[in-house]
Amino acid sequence: MNAPLYARTRRASVGALGEAALIARIRRWLGAASPRPPAGIGDDCAVLPPLLGRQLVTVDPLIQGIHFDRRTPAPAAGAKLLKRNLSDIAAMGGRPRAAVIALALDPRVSVAWLGGFYRGLARESRRHRVPIVGGDVATLPGAFVATLTLIGSAAGRVLTRTGGRRGDWIYVTGRLGRSLATGHHHRFQPRLAEGAWLARRPEVRAMLDVSDGLAKDLWALTPRGLAPAVYGPLLPRRAGASVAEAMGDGEDYELLFCVAAGARRGPFEAAWRRAFPGERLTCVGRLVRANSVPPGALVPGDFHGYEHLR
Amino acid sequence: MNAPLYARTRRASVGALGEAALIARIRRWLGAASPRPPAGIGDDCAVLPPLLGRQLVTVDPLIQGIHFDRRTPAPAAGAKLLKRNLSDIAAMGGRPRAAVIALALDPRVSVAWLGGFYRGLARESRRHRVPIVGGDVATLPGAFVATLTLIGSAAGRVLTRTGGRRGDWIYVTGRLGRSLATGHHHRFQPRLAEGAWLARRPEVRAMLDVSDGLAKDLWALTPRGLAPAVYGPLLPRRAGASVAEAMGDGEDYELLFCVAAGARRGPFEAAWRRAFPGERLTCVGRLVRANSVPPGALVPGDFHGYEHLR
Repeated sequence: MNAPLYARTRRASVGALGEAALIARIRRWLGAASPRPPAGIGDDCAVLPPLLGRQLVTVDPLIQGIHFDRRTPAPAAGAKLLKRNLSDIAAMGGRPRAAVIALALDPRVSVAWLGGFYRGLARESRRHRVPIVGGDVATLPGAFVATLTLIGSAAGRVLTRTGGRRGDWIYVTGRLGRSLATGHHHRFQPRLAEGAWLARRPEVRAMLDVSDGLAKDLWALTPRGLAPAVYGPLLPRRAGASVAEAMGDGEDYELLFCVAAGARRGPFEAAWRRAFPGERLTCVGRLVRANSVPPGALVPGDFHGYEHLR
Repeated sequence: MNAPLYARTRRASVGALGEAALIARIRRWLGAASPRPPAGIGDDCAVLPPLLGRQLVTVDPLIQGIHFDRRTPAPAAGAKLLKRNLSDIAAMGGRPRAAVIALALDPRVSVAWLGGFYRGLARESRRHRVPIVGGDVATLPGAFVATLTLIGSAAGRVLTRTGGRRGDWIYVTGRLGRSLATGHHHRFQPRLAEGAWLARRPEVRAMLDVSDGLAKDLWALTPRGLAPAVYGPLLPRRAGASVAEAMGDGEDYELLFCVAAGARRGPFEAAWRRAFPGERLTCVGRLVRANSVPPGALVPGDFHGYEHLR
């Protein structure tokens, strides 16, 4: 039985605790995940040591009713907030460095639930050595929105979404579909090691993470004038997932990338297996000319990815 | 007459526009304030060039009903979101570099209102040369929350909140009180030049910006064992503001700082007047031993600063 988001009594709510006591609790819940100011929470800004090289910045929220619900344990919700952002850093081949979190919440939110949330966040933060260096708390009647901004660094090459060309092979890690139904949406591990490895492989030309569903995210990988030709039987589906679910469910947090048409796929795949034994890697199709999609290929427009702002 | 936040018809709402078209509009509204990817909006992360020296990171939201209401023009709301964060960078003596923005909003929000919001944000972004490099859009029924994370750099010394000592003089820039009533809360200009100047003055020991009200923010400047002794008649009040309003209203976005007890205040104040002619600078009191607050000094505990999570 998961703790409920809203407290049953006023005494058990963050509103009763008050702002100063809440911030003190947050620092305690974060523990070692939160350095002391000025490197951490407690001043107007967090102060970070110099970072060498280019930086990556990404921001993603976690909203009650959209990204988690009563079936999601509070610690899993906290971990998911960081992992969603880690997945974006992974998708460019980067390393995460530091995070800030802005909380906007109803004063009736339960202190116990929020403690679970922050402890889950702290565990994930320690696992990936990403300190939570700052934040903000504000009142938002009837809602819970936590917004995390993650700063990362580019170890070497940054893999963007553009760069795919005609004939390139389309690969995806892991399995797709039924992420919400199976709890994968909060249990996944962001593909940081895989992303960094792929960014070092010259045959990999473009990459992103599958968050809105393959059908939608494939288009982000496809240059103008081309189309993705992917095949239903090739799709690595999660147990019980249909092709439509693998194409459209989203929240897979897998890596989707292009391998150069002329690359030697055998050695590439063998190197992957040595680096990540047991981690599935699947070629699901190719980038083709928009007017010459082969019969039998799925038409991504027939499937619906996750549409924000419905 | 300000445009309303919510559209009168579905056709005029962001929900009718849909996600892809909305993001295209946001890029158009931002214009030159938004560089092309990978340096700007459009990939998993924004890629920033290397920054020399230490970095500053701050995050603050703008929430409908809390930080703006129907009296606030949409462009002023957009500008305020950036300026709130700029004020935090100013309070440490830093320079702003780049921002990301996460939008969580009801699909019924008006496209026209949101256009005004982003154009106001873009104008402020260009004025301070802070590109908007990335973002996220998510659905949040019944609300509008925009969260901006600002990355800055420390030119030299970083002025933190700690560092004040017994006998230090307490100074504040500008005037205090009635920020909401007068519209100052969205018309203010963040004190970036002043903050950078103060960070270069060795006699300035600690600084923060007055956002939650002087009564509350004074304590953040006061080391344990000391108390701020400030005097009502000394407070620089906005026209019509009472002492209680100057102490407690908040959203002043002025700089509050300590000058070393032994400093020569005359030359310091003269240098300020040369650097910022016409900008008010007021000594409002001193840091004293907690058990020896002089009679006549205000007791900050008698006034209420802005309490989040009421």
